[in-house]
Amino acid sequence: MIVTVTPSPALDLTWHVAALAPGTTHRAQRGEQRAGGKGINVARVAGSLGFPATVVTTALELGADLTASGIPHALVPVQGRLRRTVTVVDDATGAATLISELPDPLSEGEWRRLLLDTTARLGSARVLVVSGSVPGDAPDDLIPRLVAAARAAGVPVIVDTSGPALVAAARAGADLVKPNRDELAAAAGTPDLLEGVAMLLELGAGAVCVSLGEDGMVVVEAERPEILHRATLGRALVGNPTGAGDAAVAAFAAGMTTGRGVAESLGDAVAWAAAAVLAPLAGELGAHPDELRAEVSVSAVEWVGG
Amino acid sequence: MIVTVTPSPALDLTWHVAALAPGTTHRAQRGEQRAGGKGINVARVAGSLGFPATVVTTALELGADLTASGIPHALVPVQGRLRRTVTVVDDATGAATLISELPDPLSEGEWRRLLLDTTARLGSARVLVVSGSVPGDAPDDLIPRLVAAARAAGVPVIVDTSGPALVAAARAGADLVKPNRDELAAAAGTPDLLEGVAMLLELGAGAVCVSLGEDGMVVVEAERPEILHRATLGRALVGNPTGAGDAAVAAFAAGMTTGRGVAESLGDAVAWAAAAVLAPLAGELGAHPDELRAEVSVSAVEWVGG
Repeated sequence: MIVTVTPSPALDLTWHVAALAPGTTHRAQRGEQRAGGKGINVARVAGSLGFPATVVTTALELGADLTASGIPHALVPVQGRLRRTVTVVDDATGAATLISELPDPLSEGEWRRLLLDTTARLGSARVLVVSGSVPGDAPDDLIPRLVAAARAAGVPVIVDTSGPALVAAARAGADLVKPNRDELAAAAGTPDLLEGVAMLLELGAGAVCVSLGEDGMVVVEAERPEILHRATLGRALVGNPTGAGDAAVAAFAAGMTTGRGVAESLGDAVAWAAAAVLAPLAGELGAHPDELRAEVSVSAVEWVGG
Repeated sequence: MIVTVTPSPALDLTWHVAALAPGTTHRAQRGEQRAGGKGINVARVAGSLGFPATVVTTALELGADLTASGIPHALVPVQGRLRRTVTVVDDATGAATLISELPDPLSEGEWRRLLLDTTARLGSARVLVVSGSVPGDAPDDLIPRLVAAARAAGVPVIVDTSGPALVAAARAGADLVKPNRDELAAAAGTPDLLEGVAMLLELGAGAVCVSLGEDGMVVVEAERPEILHRATLGRALVGNPTGAGDAAVAAFAAGMTTGRGVAESLGDAVAWAAAAVLAPLAGELGAHPDELRAEVSVSAVEWVGG
């Protein structure tokens, strides 16, 4: 069982317009509405490929949708309202414009309950995935405590977040952190990809995967920091990149449930991410990753910084 | 009492972003959500200025919001889902980007019920306002029957719509039709403002008011078709023009409840519309119209086409 925890879930609303022209009026078909948040996307993708995943998050409002989607879940009741994310997809270009509402703050007790509900599920977990933004009102030690709880239970941890929470995850010894290039640069304070990776490894991360959009992904593991693993699909895809990173995380988590290391799963991660790009909504796959896997080239090179 | 009927209501969702950049992600405060539709805006504005207005429309979901706003209402229960309109306001420029969902179709019985519920309220009405788009599945004679019912009850009718429904309203003898310049050009098949106005008067409209945005409004009445009334505010306003036309219609309707003619109310209509531009949401006023009324200049000129 994969357990995903999403500190800042959302209700995702998606509208498609023929061509987005700011300042004008657009007619559109009815928008889609569903449970969102990166950990929920991870669970959806993993579950759809036969790797059962439980969602732990904070919004009772998402229960009906998760049940309808067949996703096991533990929802911490909270006083605050569920935030919404709005995506407007320009069907002419495929470009997605996102508006992400700031979350209402949680109480100390609500944050504690999220931590306890996650910890309670680690007994049956093969991997813990912590995904998405960590709101400013969360306890400073939320990520370290989640990582420590998993390590104490002998469960590997993947953390996909940004900002101070990303640094905290590396420092706490997460088995894998997965920033994109911008998130890495912001957290490391340098635009140099390899310097950023080295910093997160030095802090304590077991492995770092950096997603590079159309340029695929790179992985460096702490055990062999001189080897840079890289995987790319041989071509650019037209589609919706939202949720591609979550599909990659799902692939790494699925690999961990069968005892595979991060670098071993890198080719699958690129294939799962590519399959997600082909789907209109985050959390879905537009093709079976096996159909794309043969197109993924994986390489390993020794790098100067090692 | 003003009675407004809205054939295609909506739930209005509004988000503000610092600067809208298509294809990127924006953080935003929680969006506003409320009962929308042009007739509802008219009732809100009229009610806020002491002219009670009842809303007749088709969405039970709007009941709680209308009750909270103190707006009397008769809501026809329908099977279809309520459509949503999404507005994204760029706070840097004030530009509003709208996405308007297409409505679910109504059954024949549901359309009949809307007509009956409106007619039932004409006994206590001093004016009937028909506002907003008329969906393609509406009966062809919806507008003519609404106008005929009002005329039979001795109640003047204002119709603010577009396309074939605008032409039908003029032909049925609505006391006032209020297209904007684009709606007039589309319905009349000519970009010439005065030709378009003359066409609607010839068809049977009692008066035509054309809203011209920052250039104010013009009115021509069938009784004296050679006189063009024009009113403008002396300056451009920064704000949200959505709902300005509805505020103008509210002013004409309020005037009719006290026996004033269309041309007599034109100055008020421009002041009410200007007050609406100053408010962030359609259906609200950002100032009392009396504060702006002194700045409105009204003129009447004889025109060649008369």
